[in-house]
Amino acid sequence: MRYKCTVSYDGTNFHGFQTQKGLRSVQEEIENILVVINKQPINIYPSGRTDSGVHAIGQVFHFDSDIIMGEWNMQNAMNSRLPKDIYITNVEHVSDDFHSRFSAVSKEYHYYLDFGTFNPLKRNYRYYCSYRDIDIEQFKEALKIFVGEHDFRSFTKNQKLTYTVRTISSIEFEECENLVIVKIVGNGFMHNMVRILVAMALEVGRHKITIERLKFILEQKNRIFSPKILPSSGLYLYKVNY
Amino acid sequence: MRYKCTVSYDGTNFHGFQTQKGLRSVQEEIENILVVINKQPINIYPSGRTDSGVHAIGQVFHFDSDIIMGEWNMQNAMNSRLPKDIYITNVEHVSDDFHSRFSAVSKEYHYYLDFGTFNPLKRNYRYYCSYRDIDIEQFKEALKIFVGEHDFRSFTKNQKLTYTVRTISSIEFEECENLVIVKIVGNGFMHNMVRILVAMALEVGRHKITIERLKFILEQKNRIFSPKILPSSGLYLYKVNY
Repeated sequence: MRYKCTVSYDGTNFHGFQTQKGLRSVQEEIENILVVINKQPINIYPSGRTDSGVHAIGQVFHFDSDIIMGEWNMQNAMNSRLPKDIYITNVEHVSDDFHSRFSAVSKEYHYYLDFGTFNPLKRNYRYYCSYRDIDIEQFKEALKIFVGEHDFRSFTKNQKLTYTVRTISSIEFEECENLVIVKIVGNGFMHNMVRILVAMALEVGRHKITIERLKFILEQKNRIFSPKILPSSGLYLYKVNY
Repeated sequence: MRYKCTVSYDGTNFHGFQTQKGLRSVQEEIENILVVINKQPINIYPSGRTDSGVHAIGQVFHFDSDIIMGEWNMQNAMNSRLPKDIYITNVEHVSDDFHSRFSAVSKEYHYYLDFGTFNPLKRNYRYYCSYRDIDIEQFKEALKIFVGEHDFRSFTKNQKLTYTVRTISSIEFEECENLVIVKIVGNGFMHNMVRILVAMALEVGRHKITIERLKFILEQKNRIFSPKILPSSGLYLYKVNY
């Protein structure tokens, strides 16, 4: 029986999603309790990794088990055993050809930028931008150039990837007082890509570079032209679409 | 020179405000950096303590120093050295007859109750109430009986206090989707008092006791009649009025 699970987690106290020896990860915490519920070792397969400190509202993973349990029962069995910074929001029985990574059509990431006064209660859940006189409209304009199919090699940490063309289908904004939420939907995101894209658009908002320069950087297909990156605390994997 | 400071902190990783040997406290973190800035040991005096896990938006403390620094410079000197879960939001020079505790006229506490689905990203900042079919209007009605001058001995942890009469000047509510924020203003609050008051009003909302019973408990002046208490994660010291 294959189970598809949707999970929300607070990334603050994790060294990312994927198991790493000697470091606390979301994957290890989930596999640790699944072995108890299923009475057999279970491997889980996520839609993709998230980095250290990155949060998730709707990350998805699947796993196979010989145990047949109702969806609601499985969800409860997991949540009652998981640590409080991980919460399973949905469990579904799916057919064996469903794969959390390969069946995914697109993903939505949100980045939280706050231009207001630092609030220690929200420090782990957004990026407090201390730059002043940011041109928010220019920042938004800059991000819009990334919509469409592009080779995003200039905006990923992993410069050895063979195929770096991705399609960003939409970039939307939500604003509330001093908070700007950037909502990016695309068919795939490479390592650190969202945090680099938003960081470089912020350079335009700061009047450090022009939109023309940013278009030039996109064409160069080399990370050396875009050295900036924003903190992981502002980034959320919001949804995986199938 | 006497300095009045307003401070916000995330109570999650503190064993309360007051210094306790071997445990991390807000007071100790602040005094540790003030000795560096002032080049002399400094004692700080808060408007009152907060318990382990309780947050503050506008806690106030004062201290005396031989060093004369501008308000803004002192604030910056402190914030640049403090850990990220404490943030000084204001510094003022005040006269020597100002006392953060004795000059305070009233305090405002907020309690965050969430009746919606558990969210791991907000777990430390509100109380997730898992009871269903709560009568919110009855819960509010119940809280309203506490407004005015009363002997609140039934609603404090410290049963040995000699004087337990306090005045609650207002209780207001803010609601947003599944979140209810209770805003209580009073001339003084005893140990655990807000968390016990809200917990007992919640018993009315759950139809476990009637409002008449709650009035009876208030008259008994004995904690034995009100054994409930809500978690510290939902409580915020919002403001101290002078």
